[in-house]
Amino acid sequence: MTYFPASLERLIDSFASLPGIGRKSAQRLAFHVLSLPDQEALAFSDAIASAKKEVRRCKVCRNYTDHEICSICSSDRRDRSVICVVSDPRDVLSLERAREYNGLYHVLHGVISPMNHIGPDDIGVKELLVRAAGDEVQEVIMATNPDTEGEATALYISRLLKPFNIKVTRLAYGIPVGSNLEFADDATLMRALEGRTEL
Amino acid sequence: MTYFPASLERLIDSFASLPGIGRKSAQRLAFHVLSLPDQEALAFSDAIASAKKEVRRCKVCRNYTDHEICSICSSDRRDRSVICVVSDPRDVLSLERAREYNGLYHVLHGVISPMNHIGPDDIGVKELLVRAAGDEVQEVIMATNPDTEGEATALYISRLLKPFNIKVTRLAYGIPVGSNLEFADDATLMRALEGRTEL
Repeated sequence: MTYFPASLERLIDSFASLPGIGRKSAQRLAFHVLSLPDQEALAFSDAIASAKKEVRRCKVCRNYTDHEICSICSSDRRDRSVICVVSDPRDVLSLERAREYNGLYHVLHGVISPMNHIGPDDIGVKELLVRAAGDEVQEVIMATNPDTEGEATALYISRLLKPFNIKVTRLAYGIPVGSNLEFADDATLMRALEGRTEL
Repeated sequence: MTYFPASLERLIDSFASLPGIGRKSAQRLAFHVLSLPDQEALAFSDAIASAKKEVRRCKVCRNYTDHEICSICSSDRRDRSVICVVSDPRDVLSLERAREYNGLYHVLHGVISPMNHIGPDDIGVKELLVRAAGDEVQEVIMATNPDTEGEATALYISRLLKPFNIKVTRLAYGIPVGSNLEFADDATLMRALEGRTEL
């Protein structure tokens, strides 16, 4: 019982296949696209095609880039002795926003997750070991998310890095700045106590 | 301070320009598209372009169609003496789903809204009058939304239709089937009382 034209149905299906977008939202988005001026709609269509075509993974750190090697890896202002391991390209953005870190990154694009059939080979662990085997690297900072899978991945990688005689560190746990003790969960408070520093 | 490749930023911008999609969601969607197989991503891109190219408004009722005249207007099974006026193509879908109505439609693509500079000329009122002037039409059902602008639009159109000696009706107001009196608002209850029918 379809009353929309086939091409409109296809567009709705496309939107509905995106994560977090239900059928009704997909309809709303598809109708919005139809209501756009031709030029804007085609720019959207083109943005998808060209992003898909141009964006690839940096040969060194696997972050998204439109060059062979990303701007961070090819910069001569970055400290090449430290590699920060993150699970997602967006985490690079978050860390860069903090303006505290000046080393390189390694983007896993995922975490080890036996439930989802994701093993070490699927997330570029091998590439990290190759980089770690180089002379320059002195420290690897594990910055995967502080959840079960992120922790397990960090632990797994840190063990593989042991033989390289490299310092392996983990982001500090604790209470978020600006938050309230009242709302901190037990696990976070425990870690915050464990990791307390002298004033 | 952009750390994503330009084409990825453009894709994020495109998603963020959609209604109800914020910057973070747009990033999530853009990353999802990048993670799709080439074929699926290009199918999405193509769906936008071809929907925009193929979908147009039916010459008779202004509903979306990929033909000159939509499947409802060109069907010989529909009662051509009744026109149901709705503000949005999705309303046609809702009414068709009820399987109660067998007449034709007229899609306004909006409602009269002085605040948003939308006047009668912008929503195809003239086209409706042309259709009403035909011999066949005996009844026009106003099925705009029961909000202020929908009401005003229905009232405005019904006045224009007066001279044509056509029956103009409005969808009934009342308590939604399956709902609870407790949750019905005052205005709805008032209308439900006014419109009560004999058992």
